Amino acid sequence: METILSTQNSRVKEWEKLKTKKGRRKTGRYLLEGRHLVNEVLQSGAELDYVVSTQAELDVITFTVPEEKLVIISEKIADRLSDTVTTQGIFAIVQIPNQQRQLAEPQGNEAGAWLFLDNIQDPGNIGTMVRTADAAGFAGVVFGKGTADIFNPKVQRAMQGSQFHIQLILGNLEIWLKQFQAAHYPVYGTELNPQAKQYTDIEQVRDFALIMGNEGNGMSQELLKQTTANVYIPITGQAESLNVAVAAGILMFALKANEL
Amino acid sequence: METILSTQNSRVKEWEKLKTKKGRRKTGRYLLEGRHLVNEVLQSGAELDYVVSTQAELDVITFTVPEEKLVIISEKIADRLSDTVTTQGIFAIVQIPNQQRQLAEPQGNEAGAWLFLDNIQDPGNIGTMVRTADAAGFAGVVFGKGTADIFNPKVQRAMQGSQFHIQLILGNLEIWLKQFQAAHYPVYGTELNPQAKQYTDIEQVRDFALIMGNEGNGMSQELLKQTTANVYIPITGQAESLNVAVAAGILMFALKANEL
Repeated sequence: METILSTQNSRVKEWEKLKTKKGRRKTGRYLLEGRHLVNEVLQSGAELDYVVSTQAELDVITFTVPEEKLVIISEKIADRLSDTVTTQGIFAIVQIPNQQRQLAEPQGNEAGAWLFLDNIQDPGNIGTMVRTADAAGFAGVVFGKGTADIFNPKVQRAMQGSQFHIQLILGNLEIWLKQFQAAHYPVYGTELNPQAKQYTDIEQVRDFALIMGNEGNGMSQELLKQTTANVYIPITGQAESLNVAVAAGILMFALKANEL
Repeated sequence: METILSTQNSRVKEWEKLKTKKGRRKTGRYLLEGRHLVNEVLQSGAELDYVVSTQAELDVITFTVPEEKLVIISEKIADRLSDTVTTQGIFAIVQIPNQQRQLAEPQGNEAGAWLFLDNIQDPGNIGTMVRTADAAGFAGVVFGKGTADIFNPKVQRAMQGSQFHIQLILGNLEIWLKQFQAAHYPVYGTELNPQAKQYTDIEQVRDFALIMGNEGNGMSQELLKQTTANVYIPITGQAESLNVAVAAGILMFALKANEL
């Protein structure tokens, strides 16, 4: 166990850089914040360099941090590392698994329900969709082009631990779509177009993918053309659209067949 | 049309106070921010005192602001009034309708689907639920005890115009629940309890109310005991819960019967 009290310490500066995509790419590490997530990452068996915490926080937590990984920091350093307004003061410096450092292709054994994210930008929306996919028993989420980084601190926080429950993959959605269809798994696009199929008319299946698109512009026209079918949630009131995370929740729960 | 350039102007100070509940209660006014909402409020026929805008913003908007209501302000004043990081620079000072200044009881003609909010605190969640209720063709939303204020700027922003499409009411949910049941409309509570009814087993009806509860603690035990039935969304993965706005979206679309 060691203690760092200066915000000028070179390691503190290194950790701060993990808030940026560049810093994460350079070091292959990311920064996880908060009691719940640090507990989850310790239980997950992920490779981690350090658990970094204020003494006040250590006195409060109910789980054990391995002595050799622990670094005590000052409140000031905690504020520097934090991405929240009032930090709990506990962080983990975690290695990004090799398979999440680059685009990955399907392995050919992707059974179950999958969510594909096409150009989704709001970290809160992404985190909520991953959490909902977890709740709905989905196998994984593929982060496609333009979608915010899996290891962005705001995305990590919004996932609330679901990042340790289901697979999160960086992928080229065109490749994933083709391989799912080759395996005879339907891939459903989503569009704000009453000409698309109503989601309630789609038969529930266990193995499929659902694509959600950008908050303002929807999913890419290229992908829309290649899907098995495109689905639509009928809007009966005057709202122009649904929040993307709400729409994803309605569709994930409606399309997936659950075993009895 | 008049112009105000000093942030020390007494009217600017008055308008700034509308960001607080106290300021709104004292004056019976609220502050609405952004191009889309100002356009909606103008179209809605609501009583408004002023449209306050920077010259730069006025040059960009495509709708007309009545000359006698218009006040031009500096960018600095816009920043002071704004609740966002980068403001568009346009606001309206709107009168709170009499019926929304105090608790209201049902009128006895509340047909349709209704959403009751019990102690919901996050403005983003509230706004998203109102927007989803609008999309799903709900008649209105009742803001119960502990729920953030209808006229809180963050709540207003998150509603994205749906506040002008459906009824928003301040109410005592115990009274609303009893009167709905007296009218033979079912009232569904929600709980994270597999002993509750699965939502997919509830028959769709046109006239009913759905109660959503606090983000962390769920809805009040008192209300849970008095509902027609309590429903549950089965969680098949490892997530502990769903985001309340996602859960509300799934339930609103699943429970409401739509005409053919």
